Amino acid sequence: MAMVKYVEYSEATGDVKAVYDDIMTTRKVDWINNIWKALACHPPTLRRIWEQVKAVMGPGTRIDPLTKELIYIAVSMTNNCEYCIHSHTASARKQGMDKEVFGELAAIVALANQTNRLAIAYQIEVDEKFKNPL
Amino acid sequence: MAMVKYVEYSEATGDVKAVYDDIMTTRKVDWINNIWKALACHPPTLRRIWEQVKAVMGPGTRIDPLTKELIYIAVSMTNNCEYCIHSHTASARKQGMDKEVFGELAAIVALANQTNRLAIAYQIEVDEKFKNPL
Amino acid sequence: MAMVKYVEYSEATGDVKAVYDDIMTTRKVDWINNIWKALACHPPTLRRIWEQVKAVMGPGTRIDPLTKELIYIAVSMTNNCEYCIHSHTASARKQGMDKEVFGELAAIVALANQTNRLAIAYQIEVDEKFKNPL
Amino acid sequence: MAMVKYVEYSEATGDVKAVYDDIMTTRKVDWINNIWKALACHPPTLRRIWEQVKAVMGPGTRIDPLTKELIYIAVSMTNNCEYCIHSHTASARKQGMDKEVFGELAAIVALANQTNRLAIAYQIEVDEKFKNPL
Amino acid sequence: MAMVKYVEYSEATGDVKAVYDDIMTTRKVDWINNIWKALACHPPTLRRIWEQVKAVMGPGTRIDPLTKELIYIAVSMTNNCEYCIHSHTASARKQGMDKEVFGELAAIVALANQTNRLAIAYQIEVDEKFKNPL
Amino acid sequence: MAMVKYVEYSEATGDVKAVYDDIMTTRKVDWINNIWKALACHPPTLRRIWEQVKAVMGPGTRIDPLTKELIYIAVSMTNNCEYCIHSHTASARKQGMDKEVFGELAAIVALANQTNRLAIAYQIEVDEKFKNPL
Repeated sequence: MAMVKYVEYSEATGDVKAVYDDIMTTRKVDWINNIWKALACHPPTLRRIWEQVKAVMGPGTRIDPLTKELIYIAVSMTNNCEYCIHSHTASARKQGMDKEVFGELAAIVALANQTNRLAIAYQIEVDEKFKNPL
Repeated sequence: MAMVKYVEYSEATGDVKAVYDDIMTTRKVDWINNIWKALACHPPTLRRIWEQVKAVMGPGTRIDPLTKELIYIAVSMTNNCEYCIHSHTASARKQGMDKEVFGELAAIVALANQTNRLAIAYQIEVDEKFKNPL
Repeated sequence: MAMVKYVEYSEATGDVKAVYDDIMTTRKVDWINNIWKALACHPPTLRRIWEQVKAVMGPGTRIDPLTKELIYIAVSMTNNCEYCIHSHTASARKQGMDKEVFGELAAIVALANQTNRLAIAYQIEVDEKFKNPL
Repeated sequence: MAMVKYVEYSEATGDVKAVYDDIMTTRKVDWINNIWKALACHPPTLRRIWEQVKAVMGPGTRIDPLTKELIYIAVSMTNNCEYCIHSHTASARKQGMDKEVFGELAAIVALANQTNRLAIAYQIEVDEKFKNPL
Repeated sequence: MAMVKYVEYSEATGDVKAVYDDIMTTRKVDWINNIWKALACHPPTLRRIWEQVKAVMGPGTRIDPLTKELIYIAVSMTNNCEYCIHSHTASARKQGMDKEVFGELAAIVALANQTNRLAIAYQIEVDEKFKNPL
Repeated sequence: MAMVKYVEYSEATGDVKAVYDDIMTTRKVDWINNIWKALACHPPTLRRIWEQVKAVMGPGTRIDPLTKELIYIAVSMTNNCEYCIHSHTASARKQGMDKEVFGELAAIVALANQTNRLAIAYQIEVDEKFKNPL
């Protein structure tokens, strides 16, 4: 059960309504999903998070939209965020992710979680050849 | 400091040497990086992990090689695995990742970590529209 | 579903009953919440955890009671502990936390999770000026 | 070793220099710490993160400045972020945190990490009395 | 709700059916639990994960079967994996774990999570006497 | 670099000295390792943590001493706690852990981290047959 009462679109006013409208316009959808309705309880956070999501996940970047969603889901799987796994899987499907690509993604995430722990378990030192700033 | 003594190539015999040779052939490199030298202390684990990495990260998948590395790095950043961030950044550079793409990747990973915690903090419920198995 | 059967107050005897009574007296409440009913399945753990909570979260410290609850919730949000987010939000409300303060708390927790990952992603080195033991 | 070359103040131009100047003016300091020098490799991220830190951690909120730093450190300890523990401990000291308050903070963070895992280990269900949105 | 439709035994063909049969034979059970039914959506992952579980958790190792399950549960508690806590608790019970042993296990896991965070909070340096590779 | 100045044995007085003496007597060692020297900066925490470690990790339990150390290390590997991996590996060696057992332990921890993420990635539901309180 959510920690706050959701702010429905019909109740939204001022900046909350403005953000809701921008979300629907930007994403070409006609409804608001729950995370925004919860963040609306603290309007400055709603505004800040939406502006960031729009900038980072929106167009104009080198990394393509589907890859960005796959990265987002990978983090959400690693952090055990049920909500974000579901919401970004929905976004990735719109970009073309199907069951097979999801399966490959989950396999990479699981493998990385495994080898991360091996590197930590053995306290492996970074090879000199890898110390080479971008 | 690593928890075990690394097994250098010159000391490797039997299955350890066979895995080392396969790593170098598969990756077209002439050296073995530290994680394999540590795993060599437990040969069945060395073999199992290498076979998995080869299968999951190798050719023949829908997700392309650079995207796979970006996903791997995203998990490693989230898990705070210094070794894996360095080693997979090295691999991603071979696939074309430059400073700008790394910056975009870090921004997505950081944003996902932020919104994951907001979804958890507010205990957001999954929207009915997102409950739709692949 | 919980891993063990809860021990209800009416079933409690000996040290379990003594801890239950101390919890209700100390907190001025007339019921026992679920975590204690589960820990009661292993009485030494019940006793140890309660003694610690009483000492760390109780009076006589420099950090005030509401701030202690906010810190507790911040950790629980970061660790994705649904139970602890709910139970310590209930405690913080008794200390005066309202929806706005909760919103500010969630925003700080989310921001810290974001910048933590950036510091890790870029493997930032600690500035010399920060190396200054308390 | 950091993943990118830091951008020193003397090398900064355009928006990077503008952010650096704003950081020093806002914080009343005469130097730039390493995280900003790394984020400067991706100027839009530098700008976005700084604007957020300024908004969330700056004045005009219900939660006071020292408490905000304690919450930030609590998250950083839980996430094992060496850099953020150091940098926010430096900030908290300016707000009056001494060794004793740090000790109390660490004790709360450690206790919460312990009880979080007990709640998870036993899969405790949220009490009905706690299900009460803010 | 699971992200994919489970593949029931009656629907399984080819390698999926072969793995299902091997799971039931190896474990001497007459049903397939949900994780395998989900992994079956990506047959190469199903095969790889099962082969690993069989090798790592099966006979022929120095660590005994019950201890292996306790270690597995300890990791699952730390990672907040509800499914794995339940499934490996079921396995451990077959090996003789009762409520008291579970209570001791949870107490160790909780304590380690507490002291891990203290070591991280204080940024404790590894003692020279502990730097001694296996 | 540690966040506080360590309290050496020669500087210890009162309850700090009493705890130090009890640690050395209980463990039959003639030195104090760094974590206690740091916790000594907040004597009530030093006392509380030591009493817990003594109770949970000491004699009189169903789980044997080596298994307790393996569980402790498993958690520390999962949490990426360098200090605790080193200190509890030292303890486990006294109980008979050698390189092979360490290798088996790391393999189980890595596998559990992998399958935990698969269970989370696919949002697997707990099988009805597993819902059976201890």
